[in-house]
Parts: sequence; structure tokens; C-alpha cells
Amino acid sequence: MTAVSKVLSRRDLEFLLYEWLDAEALTARERFAEHSRETFDAFLDVSQQIAERDFAPHNRAGDLNEPTFDGEKVTIIPEVSRALKVFAESGLPAAGFPAELGGLQLPHVVQRACFLWFQAANTGTSAYAMLTSGNAHLLVAHGTDEQIQRYVLPMLEGRFTGTMCLSEPQAGSSLSDVTTRAAKQPDGTYRVTGGKMWISGGDHELSENIIHLVLARVEGAPAGVKGLSLFIVPKKDLETGERNGVVLAGLNHKMGYRGTTNTVLAFEDAAAELVGEEGRGLQYMFHMMNEARIGVGAGAVALGYTGYLHALDYARERLQGRPVGDKNPTAPPVAIVRHPDVRRMLLSSKSYVEGGLALILYAAKLLDEPSPENDLLLDTLTPIVKAWPSQWCRLADDHAIQIHGGYGYTREYPVEQFYRDNRLNSIHEGTDGIQALDLLGRKVTQKGGAGLGLLLGRIRSRAGLVPELGDAVIEAAARVEATTAKLWAAGNAETALVNATAYLDAVGHLVIAWMWLEQWSAAEGKEGDFYEGKRLAARYFVTHELPRIGPLLDLLDSGDTLLRDMDDAWLG
Amino acid sequence: MTAVSKVLSRRDLEFLLYEWLDAEALTARERFAEHSRETFDAFLDVSQQIAERDFAPHNRAGDLNEPTFDGEKVTIIPEVSRALKVFAESGLPAAGFPAELGGLQLPHVVQRACFLWFQAANTGTSAYAMLTSGNAHLLVAHGTDEQIQRYVLPMLEGRFTGTMCLSEPQAGSSLSDVTTRAAKQPDGTYRVTGGKMWISGGDHELSENIIHLVLARVEGAPAGVKGLSLFIVPKKDLETGERNGVVLAGLNHKMGYRGTTNTVLAFEDAAAELVGEEGRGLQYMFHMMNEARIGVGAGAVALGYTGYLHALDYARERLQGRPVGDKNPTAPPVAIVRHPDVRRMLLSSKSYVEGGLALILYAAKLLDEPSPENDLLLDTLTPIVKAWPSQWCRLADDHAIQIHGGYGYTREYPVEQFYRDNRLNSIHEGTDGIQALDLLGRKVTQKGGAGLGLLLGRIRSRAGLVPELGDAVIEAAARVEATTAKLWAAGNAETALVNATAYLDAVGHLVIAWMWLEQWSAAEGKEGDFYEGKRLAARYFVTHELPRIGPLLDLLDSGDTLLRDMDDAWLG
Repeated sequence: MTAVSKVLSRRDLEFLLYEWLDAEALTARERFAEHSRETFDAFLDVSQQIAERDFAPHNRAGDLNEPTFDGEKVTIIPEVSRALKVFAESGLPAAGFPAELGGLQLPHVVQRACFLWFQAANTGTSAYAMLTSGNAHLLVAHGTDEQIQRYVLPMLEGRFTGTMCLSEPQAGSSLSDVTTRAAKQPDGTYRVTGGKMWISGGDHELSENIIHLVLARVEGAPAGVKGLSLFIVPKKDLETGERNGVVLAGLNHKMGYRGTTNTVLAFEDAAAELVGEEGRGLQYMFHMMNEARIGVGAGAVALGYTGYLHALDYARERLQGRPVGDKNPTAPPVAIVRHPDVRRMLLSSKSYVEGGLALILYAAKLLDEPSPENDLLLDTLTPIVKAWPSQWCRLADDHAIQIHGGYGYTREYPVEQFYRDNRLNSIHEGTDGIQALDLLGRKVTQKGGAGLGLLLGRIRSRAGLVPELGDAVIEAAARVEATTAKLWAAGNAETALVNATAYLDAVGHLVIAWMWLEQWSAAEGKEGDFYEGKRLAARYFVTHELPRIGPLLDLLDSGDTLLRDMDDAWLG
Repeated sequence: MTAVSKVLSRRDLEFLLYEWLDAEALTARERFAEHSRETFDAFLDVSQQIAERDFAPHNRAGDLNEPTFDGEKVTIIPEVSRALKVFAESGLPAAGFPAELGGLQLPHVVQRACFLWFQAANTGTSAYAMLTSGNAHLLVAHGTDEQIQRYVLPMLEGRFTGTMCLSEPQAGSSLSDVTTRAAKQPDGTYRVTGGKMWISGGDHELSENIIHLVLARVEGAPAGVKGLSLFIVPKKDLETGERNGVVLAGLNHKMGYRGTTNTVLAFEDAAAELVGEEGRGLQYMFHMMNEARIGVGAGAVALGYTGYLHALDYARERLQGRPVGDKNPTAPPVAIVRHPDVRRMLLSSKSYVEGGLALILYAAKLLDEPSPENDLLLDTLTPIVKAWPSQWCRLADDHAIQIHGGYGYTREYPVEQFYRDNRLNSIHEGTDGIQALDLLGRKVTQKGGAGLGLLLGRIRSRAGLVPELGDAVIEAAARVEATTAKLWAAGNAETALVNATAYLDAVGHLVIAWMWLEQWSAAEGKEGDFYEGKRLAARYFVTHELPRIGPLLDLLDSGDTLLRDMDDAWLG
């Protein structure tokens, strides 16, 4: 293990887990009683080790040699299979699951920290594991015991992988338009027919079997999302090993994230099992989707973080130019980290990726301490956890290119790949625009606004403890509260939601400012460069970044409806 | 010629050239007396025709098949050579040059409009022509008659191409560290030795010869930029055709802009001719660099513009989802252009690319009407012309991906290439950070602030004529003026420049708001969708975009020096 990794910061993870979130205290809970700081650290060690040794080295190879399909089977560079085998043998896939399934009952927050190493080291390869985990969690929550035995156990052993099959070519974000249909058979099983689009991990030879979770409409079901049911459709029959009616219709060729196959699948009278009850498919799928949204946010943080670490390393090594005002051309050039604009890009990136990481781990810990309050808070935060890092940690990768100058734009350096890979995160699992509608249209209005009240309450509590920076955050929280009330005062959703993206942007920045106050408090009274860095980034975020929300809230407060009232014919 | 092009908008070009900038009035000048609206239109026609027929169709092929080097020569797909041949035969390379050089004395503003078609259709192929034009202009301005005859005429005929060789591996932005050296020979010629980096068009078989303009240091010259001289170094001897000492050391492999070779060149005792006088090399090179900076801004606009047009077309065709509040799942889906967040992305993109286009043409027209005032204004605007489109028109390409959803992230659609191609524009010809230092450190302080005064005067004059939107712009101009004075009040460059990027961002948005007021006035009293669109985008930019500058100016006014005072050790 290298002392200073460019994949991710172990020091930062330990600060957040132990000095801030007090992850050790989770061991007082029965579920986590077998654990200790030592076991947590052992999982972090092994994750970093495997990520650096087995995942990072083929990150570029996976990008340059994307999966191919010859009409018979999909070929993927062998490093991917080898890395996933090591991952499976480490026990990490099962680590978070209950002991009765062979799991180790590791807390979510530690698991999340562990998995970030893989996402940062190799987004493309790690995605197979992420999808499989989400699939398994869904089946544990909503499948029968027999389904869990048949499908989940092999996934936890690394023998099977999983997918989620929602989108169709004509229905990306609009699941009410899903047309894939399921016909019930006399024996109680189903047959599924239809086309699915954008299915990550939809076909490959990396596992013995692929377990597809497919949204489809049983004959006679009502239109809209209420008519959707969820089905298990294995690629191959578990007993005979024969191919089920799941045909790979083609691979999509992406700008980034190329190591993960992304497929067009045709289900042709494929044998299927119902999950739970008919008509509740979307509700079940949200179990996986919510996990996937946090996973996507985490992936965006991980890619931004590794980009930042690469840029910082480069900025400290690369000598060029002289400080402003130094007119002596024979003076030796300085490291570019001395130049204020390079510092701006580094410090803003630090504030984005470390702020985003704090949010990811905070959200994960809410899952470890389930309560009506924590569940509501997580539900409210989910669109921000997904969308904010997708936008801002991507900017860290953009800065990483810029700091590298021309070199950063070439494939000889890794940062351009991070930038391309991270571009997907604003799209999959619900675009940023969908997250904005979810936040303003659903999350902050449900239960009489209790979720927003809870969030703002936590922000205010923390801000009250940080006199140096808290006032600006308390003021921003008050503005968000007032703006939300004003937007919904008339009860007209079309008008309230017209600038939903500005709302998501504003609340997202408020939440990250809060995350920085949390870190400020956790660093309080502690000395050394690491803690000075936390204070510096907190100060930067509150003074340079948080003010961005002013014009956004002004716009929302103005009741502007330009985007509703305009005529499309005026474009172009 | 298609009625509605997705490459660029002829209608918008005509509006800007004829309804706003009154390009026809230029024909009253002696230099342009042979021209008329008809000749201008003929050049626009032929540009669109060649761009659509010969440049656009191989844009993707150039991306997928980047130039290769086998150690002997560079291979480029044949479509590039064919397209450049058609371009040369059209007379466009010589169009802007004086009649005595075989040129047609076409105004800069019309030439710029013409060339945008090529940049939008195929950035990679068009770059060879752009570099050659800049090279030729420099030699016409600073070369001897003999040099013009020998080098410029073949460039205008399309037989030779040109490059600019400034950067070295250890000195990208920092030209004072250039180490390439030139040894004077008894016959008055020179021999150049050293390594150059990032040389676009540095080697290929597209032309009979390549004319490199090389910054180098004559033996005994002082350190720093004052010791730099400029040399003509042809790839091959013009008489014998033998290779000069210019060796292709390698090709750089870029994220985008792949159609253009980007090279590492080793000059090994290469035969060279001095341009002008020794020690004035950087001054001459700025002639080419200023043109290149406007060209880069234009390229960023062109890529953003074509991305916007593709996204608009897609948004009008693609059916998905229902309007907010419509709960009927059996209602047919609507075109996504109906959704407010899609409109936000389209309308903001329109405001960026049409605002950017206006600025590019405004700048070009200043070259057609040279005067001390216009020269100063262009000089002041140049960093904004270069950096603002590089940042904001790139965002239009980002929006274009987002509007296409998953499809936009795949190579089956063109927008992901535009996004990758456009990423370079914030880097080459001086990064955004360099432009910010140029604007705040040099352009707005020179001549007692006369350039800024001139710019703000023009902004105020226009804003005074637009009562509907002008007040916010006048207020913003007053804030910029006050902030500039405050920043320089102490006369400490290090402190004044610490947040230079925030200053560039703020002034850039003010300038584009002004461009929108100009367009508002030009559209005044006119009816129809096109003019409504201009009013809509002007209103959008002033109400949704211009307020962004508030927090930036607040930060500058606060005298914040966090980025100067921080300790680098606190990062990471």
C-alpha cells in the first residue's frame, strides 16, 4: 500500500468515519456487535489494496479496449474478470449482508467507504459489482426465501451478476411508458417479451449467470406506473444452463465508462419469476434505484476525488512561470501550485470532492441507524446525493484537466478519462433534471414538508455551533425555507416547478456548506496540515461557493415563469 | 444547401451582419469598394456549401481515425486532404488578403462568418486552414516582400500550410522560459535547434510544404521574452525539396480535436530565416496569437452553436413524458422541448452561442474599421473573446448531451464529439487563467484604464436605448467600474490579481449582456418567430444569467486574499 495514494485519501476516510461520524459507536448495535475499529480498518485495508493492485492498473486498458460483440458473445479484456474474481474472493460482495446469508453485517457506512476505492480506481470494472449489490439487496428485501437462495447467494459468492432493466428505447426517464409485457403461465411463472435499453452489465462472460430484474406489464394491467410488475429473468436456466430468451441486440458505444458493457436487450418469451406482487414493481425497483442513486453520487465523488489527487500531485511537481510581480526572467520557475488560479481550481475541487464524500458517508450512515426520522431525511437527501456530486465533482475533473494544461487533454495522462467517465453520472439513474423535480416536487412537499424541516433543523443546529462561518449558512437555510414556502403558496405544480433545477442547485450548495461546517467542528482544536486544510476548504466553500445561491433564490423568489410561457417556435 | 442546417444558422449570420452590424456599409471604404451584399452572400453560400458537403461528413471519421505516424510519415484519412483542396480551390484562403497578393479584400467580418461554417462542420480539418491563415497574416505584416512571395503566396494558393511554434515541453504558458536557440550563419541565415511541444499541424502530407514560425533565442540574447526572435523554418527546402532539420518526435493523442495532428517537433540545426528584427519575436508572434485567440473563441462558438442546433432538433422530435401535472398515463407523450428543464438548457445554450457569435463578429468588424479607438477596444476585448466562448459555449455542448439523455453520451450521436472537441478551447492559445491575468493585469490598466472606459462607454450607450432591460446592465457596468478601481487602488498586483478569474467571468457576462442588448435593438419593431427568439434570449440572459456576476463582484470587492494566503501544504 502506498503511503499517499492518488486513488483516494485514506486519511480523509478515517477522519470522516472516526473523527466525525463516530462509526465505532455503531458496534454498540446488535447488528454490528461483532465489529470493531480493527475490523473496519481491515476492510478498508483490503479494499485499498485490491483497488490499487487489481483495479487501477487496467483502468485505461478498459477504456481503450471497450467490450466487443461478435454476434455470439461479448469479449472483455481479461483483467476485468480477474479483478472481479479477486473482489469476490475477498468477501467484500457479501460483507454488508446478514450472517444467515453468509454475510458479515458490516455497516453501510464502512461498506460505502470501502467501495469508493473501487469506483475511484476503475469505474468501469466496479460497476458490475455495484449493480450486483443493488440487485441482491432488492431481492433480500422483496424476494421469497427460495429466490434469495437461488439468486442472491450466488451473487454474494461472485458467481452471478445482476442488472436492472427499466428503460426502453422510447421510454428513458418516463417509466409509465414501459411496454415490455409479461404473460402469466399456468404454472405460475411468466414469460417476458419486449426491448430494454441502456442495460449496464446486460451481457458478458464475467459470471456464470446474469440475473436481470425487469420491469414489465402483465397482460391486462392498467396503464402508467401502477401497471408495472417486477420480474427475475436469468440469462440462463439455473438447472439446465440453457440460454433463456434474452438476446443481446447490440452494445452502446459510450464517450466514457467504457469498461462497463451497456446493452440493448431483447426479451423474447423469456422465462421469468414474479418478485412480490403484481403491480408493485416500481415500488420494489425504487429499493434498488435509491441504492443506485447513492452509488452514482458516490461514483461521481470517487472520480472527482481521484482527479483532484492527480491534479494536486501534478501541481506540486510541475515547474512553470513565476509569481505575479516577479519580473526577473532568470529566477527559477516555481511549482504551479503557487499560482493563485491553480490554487483556486485545487481548493474548489477539494471543497467539492471532500464535501461530496462527507455527504455520501452521512447518507450511508443514515441506513445504519434506521428510524422514521433518519429514513425521511435520507429520502429527502437522495436527489441531492445523486445530482450534486454528478455536477460538481465532475467540475473537479474538469479542473484536473485544466491544471494539467495540454497534457491533461491527452490520453497519455489519466485525467481526461475521469472527465469522460464522470459525464455519465448526470444522466443515468435519473438525470439531474429528474432529481430536481423529485426534490422540489416530491421530497420537500411530502408529509407537510417534514423532510425539509428536518434537514434545515440539522443544518441550523450545526451552524449554531460554528460562530466563524455559521451565520451565512443559517441565513441561507432561512432563505431556502422562505423560498420553498413561496413557491408552493399557490399550490400550482406547473408554476412551482418551472425553475426546479435552480432550486436543486441552491439546496445542494446549502447541504454541502453544512457538510463543511460538520467537518469544521470535527477538526476543531486539532492542529496540523490536515486539519488546517479542512478549515481552509470550509472557509472557501462558505465564502466563495455558497454565495452562488443568492441569484438562484432571487430568481425563484421572483416567480419568474419565462420557461413556461415561452413559445418553442422562438428557439432556433 | 438544406433549408435548415444543423451546422450553423445562416439566418442568424445574416441578422448579425446586415440587420445589426451593417456590413454592407463597409463597401463605402476604398479597401472593400469592389464588394456588395451580393458578393458577401456569395461567399457565405459557398462556405456553407463546402462545409456541409466536404467538411461535415467526415467529422466523425476524423475523430475515430486519428492521424498515425509510422516513423516515416503521418497518415491522415483522405477526406481531410480532399476537403482542404476544395477549400483552397474556392479562393477562400486568399479572400481576405490584398489584391496585390491575389486576394479579394473581403472584410474580416464576412471572412469570419464564412470560416465559422468550417469550424462548426469539422473543427479538426478546419484547423489546418486557420493556422495557415494566421501564419500568412503575420508574414504579410512583418515579413519582407521576398518572404511574402516565397511563403505567403503558396499558402494562399493552398499549396503550403503553416504552424506557430511557441510552447516547449517545459514551457507551455511561460514563454520567457523558451530555450530553443538560433545560431546566426555567415550568410545572414540562421540555424535553429530545440524542442517544440503542442504544435498543431506540425507534420502531415496535406501540403507541399509546412512553414513553421518558430520562437527561438539567438545566441547571446537576454533572458526572458525580450530575448526571443521569430524565424521561418520550412519543413523542406523550397528549391531542392530536401527535408530541413525538422523531425517529428511524436504525435500527441488527444481527448478530442483528433482530426488535427498535434506534434512534438525536434528542430535540429534547421535552416531558418529571421522575421523582422532580432528580439522582437514575441511582439510579432502576438500578431498571429491575437488572431488565433479570436479564432479559438470563434471555434468554441461554432462547436457550441452546432451542438445547440442538434439538441434543438432532437428536442423537437423526441417524444417522452407528459407535462407536469398531467396525471393521465394514457395521454400521448409530448416532445421533450415542452419540458421546462429542457427549455432551460436550450434557451441558455441559445443565449450563449448567439451571444458568443455576436461578440466574435463584433470583434472582427473592429478589424475592418481600424482606428486608435477600435484597436484599443479590440485589444481589451480579446481575452474575453477567447475565454468566454471557451467556457460557456462548451456548456452548450454539455447541455446538448444532457438533452439527448443516454443517446447523447454515445458515439452514435455527434454531440459527445462536440463536447470533447470544445474542451481544448479553454487550454490552447493561453488558458482561461492566462486570459484572466491578461484582462485584469494588462488590458484594463493600460493607458490609464482607457480600454475599460471605452468598453463601458459603449455598453452604457446601448443600454440607455433599451429601457426594458438596460437598467440591470448599466448597474452591472457601474459595479465593474467600481470594482476595477478598488482592486487597483493599492497598486499591488499580487493582491489585485488573486481573484482574476472571477473578474474575467464577471466582465465576460457583462459583455455578453451588452451583445444581447445590441441584438434586442436590432430586432426592435420586427415581428416573427426569429425576432421573438432574439427578444426571449436577451430577456433570459439579462434576468437569468447576468445576476451570476453579483457574488463574483462581491468577492472581488471584499478584498479576499484566501488564495494568496493559504499554505499549499494544507491541500491534499
